[in-house]
Amino acid sequence: MKALIFDQQLQLSTDEPIPVPPPGEALVKVLMAGICNTDIEITKGYMGFQGILGHEFVGIVEEINANDKRLLGKRVVGDINCACHKDECEFCRRGLGRHCPNRTTLGIAGRNGCMAEYITLPIVNLLEVSDSIPTEIATLTEPLAAAFEILEQIRIAPEQEVLIVGDGKLGILINHALSTTKAPITHVGKHEDKLEIVKKSGSDTFLLGQMPPKQFDVVVEATGDITGFQFSIAHTKPRGTLVLKSTLAANQIIDMAPVIVNEITIVGSRCGLFPPALKYLSEGADLSPVIQSIFPIEQGIEAFREAQKKGSLKVMIRF
Amino acid sequence: MKALIFDQQLQLSTDEPIPVPPPGEALVKVLMAGICNTDIEITKGYMGFQGILGHEFVGIVEEINANDKRLLGKRVVGDINCACHKDECEFCRRGLGRHCPNRTTLGIAGRNGCMAEYITLPIVNLLEVSDSIPTEIATLTEPLAAAFEILEQIRIAPEQEVLIVGDGKLGILINHALSTTKAPITHVGKHEDKLEIVKKSGSDTFLLGQMPPKQFDVVVEATGDITGFQFSIAHTKPRGTLVLKSTLAANQIIDMAPVIVNEITIVGSRCGLFPPALKYLSEGADLSPVIQSIFPIEQGIEAFREAQKKGSLKVMIRF
Repeated sequence: MKALIFDQQLQLSTDEPIPVPPPGEALVKVLMAGICNTDIEITKGYMGFQGILGHEFVGIVEEINANDKRLLGKRVVGDINCACHKDECEFCRRGLGRHCPNRTTLGIAGRNGCMAEYITLPIVNLLEVSDSIPTEIATLTEPLAAAFEILEQIRIAPEQEVLIVGDGKLGILINHALSTTKAPITHVGKHEDKLEIVKKSGSDTFLLGQMPPKQFDVVVEATGDITGFQFSIAHTKPRGTLVLKSTLAANQIIDMAPVIVNEITIVGSRCGLFPPALKYLSEGADLSPVIQSIFPIEQGIEAFREAQKKGSLKVMIRF
Repeated sequence: MKALIFDQQLQLSTDEPIPVPPPGEALVKVLMAGICNTDIEITKGYMGFQGILGHEFVGIVEEINANDKRLLGKRVVGDINCACHKDECEFCRRGLGRHCPNRTTLGIAGRNGCMAEYITLPIVNLLEVSDSIPTEIATLTEPLAAAFEILEQIRIAPEQEVLIVGDGKLGILINHALSTTKAPITHVGKHEDKLEIVKKSGSDTFLLGQMPPKQFDVVVEATGDITGFQFSIAHTKPRGTLVLKSTLAANQIIDMAPVIVNEITIVGSRCGLFPPALKYLSEGADLSPVIQSIFPIEQGIEAFREAQKKGSLKVMIRF
């Protein structure tokens, strides 16, 4: 089968063996995969991962190695964290399989990813996609779930003022997720065209440097760079909450003093549960402006090149 | 009157005018004052403060410029943040006068401190000290309130595992405050003699470098240095909470990636409410091991020298 592989460098393989699902897992024929910044980081050495890339996908279940065959033939998305589900695992017991210390993670750690014609995943990770959601939109389920993760971690009341910093694809998905809270949202970014997208949710938008001085109850950092981080701290009210939604590169020079003096709460936020994202998509949310382009797998290398361009939105690969 | 003043350098003045309480304020004759690390930082330029130092005290109310004379003659402690209490102030309205943007702060910002024979403070800031609490113990109310502030900000359940990092005076007071939660506490520090003090609360103690590998639900950073901060992050469970109780110097090189990957919540924590601290002291808590020495005001400069010695516990000044 065809697959995009990272092994020293990004390669398009055409003769990977089709995987065989172990007990409890399903064989899924991939329809579409999305390129995430994490994939790009992996091609630069992040996580020391080698193998088939990718963790955002939609596919059709072709085979199930378990008694429960209900998902056979269904169009599905899949949680990327494959937890141990053992009774003695504190995190699995708490419903936090995405923090299970024994987990493998699709295309990121210990498990081949979804930029291939076929993958296997545990059936407990799979969720059926409702017919009303187009495949390319459903491919956004994983990053949208990461955006909804914020609402699993903190409560945002309708009267709280929210600032989202960063107008990349993650920032736009966060805008979608937080718009469900009815709290007023201000969105700051560097690109007028992207800020136009989030205006549709009713957000106030400002180009960076043009926002009037103001502090917010909840600030979400979605730039992943140190300037965005410092901007976010400076715009968080005393006793407010700053959500870090995008991984900062290690070893930045950071001034944590305002966090202590103003008693700010910083919440690190990563992967999320799929059901809230799927529910949002099934209600007809229009996420198509987040999608920049779709390449066939044969042009997978070009797809990565496109995804790495400054300011790129979501680039997908179809099979 | 005698007073310890910072103006370019630390000075003992003997001819400061006794302050006159403005409307709503009381004149308090100071009995005892404590030296805090913040005072030491101020003598190095922190906050750009000039004037009489000090914000930890016990005194006797000698005069009240208000109709309500109930505190006259009483032994009191006082909240260091003098808020505006205006209806239009969001923070005062929320009961967060310690974050009021218009506040002055005793001996720290816009208001002379308590290392003087007399101070004035708004009567709303003053709390009577119960007769059962010795004056030197009551002088610890302010830093103990800062320790109890943690419990205003986060809930610690009895089954959660707590780690306190740092065995200085603040670390010991935090141990006292958190021991009221019944959660098991592990305390890591660099000094066997200080760890002996916290053993009395039933805590497990370890010298830094000798703790077996383990992560905790709640970690409190009370060292204020970058090594302590990184140690604290590394020992916080995924989805756990790290409380920053001690101000880190600005512009440290910090790796925030584990905060995001492990979805850690960081809670900056500063001044606290006095009533929980006073209640704890009135129940007979023995905080005397936190007190290192008491100097007369005439030896105030020596008291500061003592307080600045590496490993010093609480140094106090009596009047």
